[in-house]
Amino acid sequence: MIVLYDLVGADDRRFSPFCWRIRLALAHKGLKSEDVTVGLGEKDKVAFSGQPLVPVIVDKANGGKMVNDSWAIACYLEDTYPQHSLFGGAMGQGATRLINQWAGPGFMAHIGPMVIRDLMDRFRPVDHRYFRESREKRYGKTLEQVQEGREARLPAFRAALEPIRQTVNQQQFICGEQPGYADYIVFSGFQWARIASDFELLAKDDPIAAWIGRIDGLYDGLTRKVGWGR
Amino acid sequence: MIVLYDLVGADDRRFSPFCWRIRLALAHKGLKSEDVTVGLGEKDKVAFSGQPLVPVIVDKANGGKMVNDSWAIACYLEDTYPQHSLFGGAMGQGATRLINQWAGPGFMAHIGPMVIRDLMDRFRPVDHRYFRESREKRYGKTLEQVQEGREARLPAFRAALEPIRQTVNQQQFICGEQPGYADYIVFSGFQWARIASDFELLAKDDPIAAWIGRIDGLYDGLTRKVGWGR
Repeated sequence: MIVLYDLVGADDRRFSPFCWRIRLALAHKGLKSEDVTVGLGEKDKVAFSGQPLVPVIVDKANGGKMVNDSWAIACYLEDTYPQHSLFGGAMGQGATRLINQWAGPGFMAHIGPMVIRDLMDRFRPVDHRYFRESREKRYGKTLEQVQEGREARLPAFRAALEPIRQTVNQQQFICGEQPGYADYIVFSGFQWARIASDFELLAKDDPIAAWIGRIDGLYDGLTRKVGWGR
Repeated sequence: MIVLYDLVGADDRRFSPFCWRIRLALAHKGLKSEDVTVGLGEKDKVAFSGQPLVPVIVDKANGGKMVNDSWAIACYLEDTYPQHSLFGGAMGQGATRLINQWAGPGFMAHIGPMVIRDLMDRFRPVDHRYFRESREKRYGKTLEQVQEGREARLPAFRAALEPIRQTVNQQQFICGEQPGYADYIVFSGFQWARIASDFELLAKDDPIAAWIGRIDGLYDGLTRKVGWGR
């Protein structure tokens, strides 16, 4: 049994893309897990990890081993539970690290400004003020200003997804005929966005949308069952 | 014996990043190869492949099998000569395809404008006019205008390399402790640039420069022996 500390909003919504990577990695390996939810103002719940961010896992089946940081957790799971590899070996793990480094600046940073105002409404009212103040400080604008004009930014954003699109248009998953951790990294950005907002990032006929549909078909529909709100 | 059709400039210089990927893939697998050089105005030399671009290979050890397109060639080599895998299995091959799709728009497209005018001088004089006209049409500016201001663009370019930098700062190669095709994809952009121009894209203490040094140490110094001019 592995305990996963996951960020939570109103109505049990789960946004964190980094937690989604781990939730999918746990499912991929067939490992049982249990959630501890952490509200935006409840960072003390993960203070025992020596840092303030989710995901954090505690592996009760391995002496209560604590690991934080999504990449470190994925590597820990791969080393400790070798069944159903997340990477397919050392070379795949190496290449996946580059994808892990790229995902943030490569496309996730461009998703944020398109859904950030909508996302606030999906946190608990008690968290709105902190959410707004911390994000407005980061962007140097109001959340409304950050999100404004997103329709006009959509064509450039969709064009920037071309490497992902070409890949999943030529094979079922980023990791080939079967999904792996590189899929979960990239998927997590889109999962975050669609739980945060109804804004349509992708055209309906985008091959990336079809690939998201294939991820949605995995693990008994996990990605459509958890995190959407009660 | 595999024949590799490779683009050539003045003094036997070899610029093509796509050919470099294949030259390194052949060395990685320990396969013997022989070059046929193709000048900028000699596309008829590869007309037999049904398209005008290098690399093209002809595998004399496999009934003269012809393959073009660097990704298709890498996959052909992996399937036909399984020794010393380029990808480390199906999942690594899948993830490497995303890196292959990303490399062009992700960073190689930003290298071009920093070396394109210098590159012209390293082609044979007979090729200069065609080089200038075709590239100026593509960019919609003179080569001098495209290259102008490159020093000012350097900080943003170097910042955009952060995913590569973080990766090779944490492991020896992109593919982990040993190099693989994902390394050759990314390396090829820097190899192209340094054969094209003396302009320093990287700070001397950049971890990417150290990784390039590790690639330079492979295969009896192949990347420093071929392509630099006589």
